[in-house]
Amino acid sequence: MQDRTNIGDLHDHIDTEVTVAGYVDVRRDHGKLIFLDIRDRTGIVQGVALPNHEEAVAIAGEVRSEFAIRAKAKVNVRPEKMVNKDQPNGDIELELLELQVLARAEELPFEKDAEVNLDTLLDNRPFTLRSERMRAIFKVQHEILQAYRTFLISNGFVEFEAPKIVGGDAEGGGNIFRLEYLKDKWAYLATSPQLYKQIMVGVYERVFSIGNVFRAELHSTSRHLNEYTSLDAEFGFIEDHTDVMEVQVELMRNMVSHLKETCSTEFATLNASLPLVPVDEFPHMKLREALQLIADETGEDCVNEPDLAPEHERWLCEYANKKYASDFIFITHYPVAKRPFYTYEDEGDKGYTKSYDLLFRGVEITTGGQRIHDHDMLLKRLEERGLDPDNFTFYLMAFKYGMPPHGGWGMGLERLTEKMLDLDNVKEATLFPREINRIDTKLNN
Amino acid sequence: MQDRTNIGDLHDHIDTEVTVAGYVDVRRDHGKLIFLDIRDRTGIVQGVALPNHEEAVAIAGEVRSEFAIRAKAKVNVRPEKMVNKDQPNGDIELELLELQVLARAEELPFEKDAEVNLDTLLDNRPFTLRSERMRAIFKVQHEILQAYRTFLISNGFVEFEAPKIVGGDAEGGGNIFRLEYLKDKWAYLATSPQLYKQIMVGVYERVFSIGNVFRAELHSTSRHLNEYTSLDAEFGFIEDHTDVMEVQVELMRNMVSHLKETCSTEFATLNASLPLVPVDEFPHMKLREALQLIADETGEDCVNEPDLAPEHERWLCEYANKKYASDFIFITHYPVAKRPFYTYEDEGDKGYTKSYDLLFRGVEITTGGQRIHDHDMLLKRLEERGLDPDNFTFYLMAFKYGMPPHGGWGMGLERLTEKMLDLDNVKEATLFPREINRIDTKLNN
Repeated sequence: MQDRTNIGDLHDHIDTEVTVAGYVDVRRDHGKLIFLDIRDRTGIVQGVALPNHEEAVAIAGEVRSEFAIRAKAKVNVRPEKMVNKDQPNGDIELELLELQVLARAEELPFEKDAEVNLDTLLDNRPFTLRSERMRAIFKVQHEILQAYRTFLISNGFVEFEAPKIVGGDAEGGGNIFRLEYLKDKWAYLATSPQLYKQIMVGVYERVFSIGNVFRAELHSTSRHLNEYTSLDAEFGFIEDHTDVMEVQVELMRNMVSHLKETCSTEFATLNASLPLVPVDEFPHMKLREALQLIADETGEDCVNEPDLAPEHERWLCEYANKKYASDFIFITHYPVAKRPFYTYEDEGDKGYTKSYDLLFRGVEITTGGQRIHDHDMLLKRLEERGLDPDNFTFYLMAFKYGMPPHGGWGMGLERLTEKMLDLDNVKEATLFPREINRIDTKLNN
Repeated sequence: MQDRTNIGDLHDHIDTEVTVAGYVDVRRDHGKLIFLDIRDRTGIVQGVALPNHEEAVAIAGEVRSEFAIRAKAKVNVRPEKMVNKDQPNGDIELELLELQVLARAEELPFEKDAEVNLDTLLDNRPFTLRSERMRAIFKVQHEILQAYRTFLISNGFVEFEAPKIVGGDAEGGGNIFRLEYLKDKWAYLATSPQLYKQIMVGVYERVFSIGNVFRAELHSTSRHLNEYTSLDAEFGFIEDHTDVMEVQVELMRNMVSHLKETCSTEFATLNASLPLVPVDEFPHMKLREALQLIADETGEDCVNEPDLAPEHERWLCEYANKKYASDFIFITHYPVAKRPFYTYEDEGDKGYTKSYDLLFRGVEITTGGQRIHDHDMLLKRLEERGLDPDNFTFYLMAFKYGMPPHGGWGMGLERLTEKMLDLDNVKEATLFPREINRIDTKLNN
């Protein structure tokens, strides 16, 4: 491989010659001096072409933003008065000795870091992703993924790949994409890895899966995506849903610590603040208690609602923030009818489930809870919902041969990223959003 | 959470009372004594119900294999003559004090660890996955995933989620599944994250992605799957394809070390051996050299073939094994016409590409190489292939704004697992294989 020094490591090479490679971030032409800010994946540094290096000056005069270059340069300490203390490499400068253009760039459609509206942002995604802001968002998303896995693996969870092509609309919820499979058969795109992760509990007891899921929803809102990344986990030998909530609390606590350690620069870039995490448990209440509280405090007539409206979620998060210094709040015991067939009914609170939503900064980021583990009860629930057990023989087989009490959760990566960074729209936290009007730029034509 | 001791930790609790939870692996009824082998995710241990614990005896008499149970028990050291040195917990025994059935199991269709044919194995996947053999296979697969990520992250690669729903057949290779998208539009299932990972090189320079890809192939062989997990990586500022090969060598070396550390038990269970990895570089040759070698050594008239046949791949692997003590061999310089449009043509060897296949134990496990980074050259290649550049505007945008020389690879997780463990069929290394006759059991009906 070619010799190359990372821009983030230049301080180890002061007064020596190095080769760097990266993008021209900005060129500033000051008559006799040409300045190039050069960025690579590890940092950014100012380079200068001095008149005594004629070839370097000639090339520096031709390059523009987003040219990919390689440069041989001397790492100089800047004179005291030229030091910029607010920048990582603000105390050094590269004296450009040789310059090589690796790839040319056309004139930019707009400044890389310009604020543009969402459509422009997405229409030009391959370009706009290079902005400091977007690189910060998806660096944080990368670290969320690592924090998620590291925590679960250290707790004995096994990772598995759930299939995306499935034989039917497993949960009977509609909103499922249909595809032409082989030999004139139809197949479907999984709306969740739920049934497979339950099967896998029978195998490894504790499992997790990270992958895309698909929802054929016709909405185009700031909350919806037709394809998103689901962070799933499921584990056995629990007592009830509170065990699941307890593990999720530890997960979120670990994730926030991990982001604090790894992403402080990105949070600063995005002007975002780390979530408030209570020292002990997260606040929690039953759905009915939550609705009663909202009715009592706001006068709204909502106590008999079967679910939370978006404004209720926002209200409860503000309440938890003020009362418990927590950006998280659990809502439990949704009605049986509002939850999927596999949800465990609370024996001590008939008609309500041992399930929960975790609300975070105004929205639900996780649905979880205990699942039914008894084969005959599952069969009964399927029939009550008008679902054909013959479509579930594969899934039911796991329950025929002994399934311990178990539960788990599903969490959308993009929405979690959005809320962690206080963004306005989930699409900002989605690299290549699929929605009713957009697959890349394709549906715009 | 309920009190529970992992079976793998019982040696820390000798002569004390513990609570364990898990599955009845086997029950042996010896008249007055009933033995239960109990397994959890951390290990297996023999329990015994002694006549003085009447309730435990009564329950132990009723349980069968795959019942999920919880047991209060005393951890006893076995008398010298009862020690089984070949088993991890062969020197201890649980004296069962209290037993609780958490979930019943029907009579098994066949012994969990019985050898069955592939169709029976897959038809009963939720049950057969619990066998010692299958748990070993997918534990190794889990560790392959971790080794892959750990190596790349430690080398500065950023993970991203590639979309699965795409707007068109990007590479023009056919074999693509079509799905009903929204508003009467068609969309497709990605055959690879190739175009997206190249876009992402412009953003983070070094990226990787792990996720399902889809091939609408009508084959049903021991090598083919219609959905598999692709381990992708792509990185910029390379000199040529040899840089990509160099990183892949380090990856494979690290992966084998990781498996040696974490999966020796599983390799023993599966009677598999770790691959031979050369100390320095992996053997490599051009396709033409490989074909000439085969012709010279076997007399086969194959020197003008544009690709390797399966038997050639096997022959070359045996050759590398014998001559270089390597289970890996690179074949480079496939003809331009046999590679996708984005493949980089070798300026010094016109008509041939700076691309490679990595062969491992008889099959190709990776295709990789350098990609075209020049916008106009890419446009030319698209046109030469009869592909419409208008379908590539999004992708081409990344190249308009400066793309460094770059390359990468794609590697199928299931095939890699299969070959790592010397299995006979890729479906054995696929949790829930999708193929022409099977989506779970659905298409069998």
